[in-house]
Amino acid sequence: MKTFRQVRKTENGFLKKYELLYDADGTPVRWEMISLNEIRSAADLASTLSAVEIIARFEDGDYLLCREFRFAVNDVCYEFPTGMIEPGETPQQAAARELKEETGLDVIRVDRVLPPACYSVGICDELVVPVFVTVRGDMKPCHDAYEEIASFKMSPEQIHSLLRQPGVKITETCMLALAMLDEKG
Amino acid sequence: MKTFRQVRKTENGFLKKYELLYDADGTPVRWEMISLNEIRSAADLASTLSAVEIIARFEDGDYLLCREFRFAVNDVCYEFPTGMIEPGETPQQAAARELKEETGLDVIRVDRVLPPACYSVGICDELVVPVFVTVRGDMKPCHDAYEEIASFKMSPEQIHSLLRQPGVKITETCMLALAMLDEKG
Repeated sequence: MKTFRQVRKTENGFLKKYELLYDADGTPVRWEMISLNEIRSAADLASTLSAVEIIARFEDGDYLLCREFRFAVNDVCYEFPTGMIEPGETPQQAAARELKEETGLDVIRVDRVLPPACYSVGICDELVVPVFVTVRGDMKPCHDAYEEIASFKMSPEQIHSLLRQPGVKITETCMLALAMLDEKG
Repeated sequence: MKTFRQVRKTENGFLKKYELLYDADGTPVRWEMISLNEIRSAADLASTLSAVEIIARFEDGDYLLCREFRFAVNDVCYEFPTGMIEPGETPQQAAARELKEETGLDVIRVDRVLPPACYSVGICDELVVPVFVTVRGDMKPCHDAYEEIASFKMSPEQIHSLLRQPGVKITETCMLALAMLDEKG
């Protein structure tokens, strides 16, 4: 039985770092974590929907993948488009806005919205909402100081070979989802 | 064009926090990130395989899910079993050891090892290796001060309803992978 005791912020910033103190059947346990949010009590943990991950398909069934430069790995990485949910936005609205901004594509149908999922649950309390949509339009690159994104329309065959290209970086959520599709054929 | 300039450690700990400085076509960009590793240069980013995520199936095709208490969300969370890769271990060896420790199950076949995937690429440089295995044996709970894990053998029907249970926490890698299976039927 793990019982929350207290939280202490150890560093500020966009990524706030905290030390959580739990009681584990009488044993004190300290756990480091980061959050985008102000964590003052247990109730603040995983209390905010921070982002959407967008699983977008074209009308012919092909999937949309983005290849984005990621500072944390100093390399480009293939992924499903993602974006922060702005205050007052629904996940569906955030998905449509982010897709337009990052890829130029229009959402013509929201097919499915999954419940908020725990992203990196070992190290942070971020909740991400996976949104499945159908898209249409012309893809355009997105480029500024912080974002450098190219979009790709990928057939099952192209996904199959992407998963087998040595040295290509892919996010784990995207890789596992594509691998499951690939397995099922 | 993003060019790495320098890295500065801003906090120590199990989760080390860094500030990366990039040049983005002449504009200086600062990016906060965390890492489990010592990052002294660009070459250190995403240079270590830190963990495995284990997609385990029983011989009848059911999937293995774990439900683990996660300090960062102060709640239990359904997920595929995961674990750190110990020095000198292959991902396959780490997967077999972690499964035995956390679930009591034995790996009878390694079905597929995916390339290292970027985990939480927006905030850290961790690389996780997804390992697909077939398992056999009796499931037993895992319980100590840091881990509290129950294992579940789940049919496609049980996965279908798990994805629709309100308020249930599931990791995003697990949720997206299961949703893809569920989509394909």
